[in-house]
Amino acid sequence: MENLLVLQSGGPTAVINASLAGVIKGGHESPQIGKVYGGLNGIEGVEGGRLVSLEPLSDGKSLRLLRQTPSSYLGSCRKKLPPASEDDRPYKAIFKVLEAFNIGCVCCIGGNDSMDTVQKLSRFAEETGKSVRFVGVPKTIDNDLCLTDHTPGFGSAAKFVVGCMRQLAQDTAVYDIPSVTVVEAMGRNAGWLAGSAALANDSACTAADIVCLPERPFDKAAFLARVEELCKTKKSVMLAVSEGIRGKDGSYIYQGEAAKANDKFGHASLGGAGKAVEALIKGELGVKTRSIELSTLQRCFSASASLCDVDEAFEAGCVAVRLALEGSSGIMVGFERTSQDPYRIKLVPLDVNLIANFEKRVPDEMIADDGFGVTEEFIRYALPLISGEPDLLYRDGRLQLAPPLKREPRL
Amino acid sequence: MENLLVLQSGGPTAVINASLAGVIKGGHESPQIGKVYGGLNGIEGVEGGRLVSLEPLSDGKSLRLLRQTPSSYLGSCRKKLPPASEDDRPYKAIFKVLEAFNIGCVCCIGGNDSMDTVQKLSRFAEETGKSVRFVGVPKTIDNDLCLTDHTPGFGSAAKFVVGCMRQLAQDTAVYDIPSVTVVEAMGRNAGWLAGSAALANDSACTAADIVCLPERPFDKAAFLARVEELCKTKKSVMLAVSEGIRGKDGSYIYQGEAAKANDKFGHASLGGAGKAVEALIKGELGVKTRSIELSTLQRCFSASASLCDVDEAFEAGCVAVRLALEGSSGIMVGFERTSQDPYRIKLVPLDVNLIANFEKRVPDEMIADDGFGVTEEFIRYALPLISGEPDLLYRDGRLQLAPPLKREPRL
Repeated sequence: MENLLVLQSGGPTAVINASLAGVIKGGHESPQIGKVYGGLNGIEGVEGGRLVSLEPLSDGKSLRLLRQTPSSYLGSCRKKLPPASEDDRPYKAIFKVLEAFNIGCVCCIGGNDSMDTVQKLSRFAEETGKSVRFVGVPKTIDNDLCLTDHTPGFGSAAKFVVGCMRQLAQDTAVYDIPSVTVVEAMGRNAGWLAGSAALANDSACTAADIVCLPERPFDKAAFLARVEELCKTKKSVMLAVSEGIRGKDGSYIYQGEAAKANDKFGHASLGGAGKAVEALIKGELGVKTRSIELSTLQRCFSASASLCDVDEAFEAGCVAVRLALEGSSGIMVGFERTSQDPYRIKLVPLDVNLIANFEKRVPDEMIADDGFGVTEEFIRYALPLISGEPDLLYRDGRLQLAPPLKREPRL
Repeated sequence: MENLLVLQSGGPTAVINASLAGVIKGGHESPQIGKVYGGLNGIEGVEGGRLVSLEPLSDGKSLRLLRQTPSSYLGSCRKKLPPASEDDRPYKAIFKVLEAFNIGCVCCIGGNDSMDTVQKLSRFAEETGKSVRFVGVPKTIDNDLCLTDHTPGFGSAAKFVVGCMRQLAQDTAVYDIPSVTVVEAMGRNAGWLAGSAALANDSACTAADIVCLPERPFDKAAFLARVEELCKTKKSVMLAVSEGIRGKDGSYIYQGEAAKANDKFGHASLGGAGKAVEALIKGELGVKTRSIELSTLQRCFSASASLCDVDEAFEAGCVAVRLALEGSSGIMVGFERTSQDPYRIKLVPLDVNLIANFEKRVPDEMIADDGFGVTEEFIRYALPLISGEPDLLYRDGRLQLAPPLKREPRL
């Protein structure tokens, strides 16, 4: 009987452990699966033989706690495998470990870079005649994976952004003087999260007056004119900007120290778009302005997660196990929206070759003509993804978390 | 039949509207009270005759929405009345409005500065033979009001800090490299909020390794030695620092532009202690460090409020009306802890003269000897205050808010 291995990689989300819970449940309920192992720190840990049994997490209470524990329970990594044609040593090391643990299925929960791992390992297995199957489970708060309707992790991050905008809009409106609040949301190239700030607007509250996405060049003059106009009619103006907004010349609005440093994947490490916009408004318009960077809170705040997101993340984990057992490899579990009203989705296998290293940005028809907002189509698309509130376990006012794993090396 | 007036002032909290709901309910249920009015933007609005009827908010649904709507529903102000002996014009203007609206009781929901307003107006009323009674309802996330066991607003802000620490601790631990996270909490002179970060520690999670309060001088050398020591045994080190930490010479750790600007009450406008500590650690220890400023989110995040706090804030509003009707004036509703285990409190009238313009800091016995943490006594004191989760109303994934008030002037 073969065993199952599950990995997590890339940046954490509020629901990546819900997918882990789904994989564990799927594995334990499958008679074809012997043991379920977790690889520590993604593929890096597998290469080093650091696998742990997830047996202690298979009961209902542990799975429930995992579902509400943010971040990557098994740890993460930013390792990208070299092409096997250039250097096959990591591949050999990884498959040696997989054989030692009698692993037949590997579920990788992650984003774009993790799908690259699924792609490379499944191809190597095929080329070298190994029977191990590799299936990807999508996660990213950025919602930038191609082909799939959306990605687990986005809904909860969007809901946190929406909650912040709505509650900050109440907070900023209390004094009888004009003010501008700039909220900076994550999203390097794709403005899904910044755009979701617009979901904060309803009949009771206009909590996002302007939304700036990285998909549109940031036109300072037009932006300032718009803010000035808003300040004439509204005491407290609320803005959401993506960390990745760039000027017409393509340079980031904030080109400071942080932007110069590159992380291991060659992405610019951003931050400070909010501060830059704050300085711009203060300097040019002289209005009281405050910027708030939601920072990593937006990806880990499980306490206000979307139930839709948690449930879908869990389901994607279960389905990944089923697809691997059916013999699929080199695929990612994707979401297909089969109905808009009522919202319904179907989980489908997608070819990972068409996903890895591609990026889905907000399409034109979802961005307002002037570039300072999103369209009704965006709202209809995103609103169902933030719906529902999970029933969370607290003790003494503290969100309960899955107990830490004993992380001793196993090989 | 006399009418009731309620005001809100000072910085917003997650539960200041729960107190407003309590006052409205108390007023509507008292046969001696005719109408309940709200003053817009605190005493400033009263001086300008801007009173609105709160009749539309007296039904159960509206009161429930008010309970979960953060910030000051009636608006706020930072106005401080001059001593009447120096300038009695604002007093005359205010009492003229109170007479025009036949106001017999005024409930002021606010912090230290609002209690100064209660003190001055009640004294003026007494000296000039007016029958209007003034009762304070405490609120402040800083928990720095004297005589009362604690202050509504603190529990929910502390719970947000605790939630952030616990969830960020999960987020920062995912990579297999050492890192330090610095979370900056509000609190100019009193370290209650920064100290409450220590409540994040339990058997599943050590989410606050060091806590720095403004009550102790920040000793850079000792601090760095402690961080370095922690980094040897723990991959991801978590720190909470108060915005108000100062060096041995009394100067703020962050003495930038923001610190130079003074707000109208002469408080230094702070910010940046977290960034300063981040730079210190990076520079001196060369460890990967990230700082996160919780900013105004910590005072307005009703979505993770403490039920204990919401209930107590509401109750304080009800009791204020009762005390005013019984003829009390120049008092604040205070909390007396009558039992620690189980936690029980009693609401009592406190002389506002002993509260206004005083400040309660964290006492020595609640601060760890080395100044980098809090004692068990602090934990026992603060833990009950974050307990319980309110049953919140959401629609389409959005926290529902009280409908905006029509704010037309009434005089």
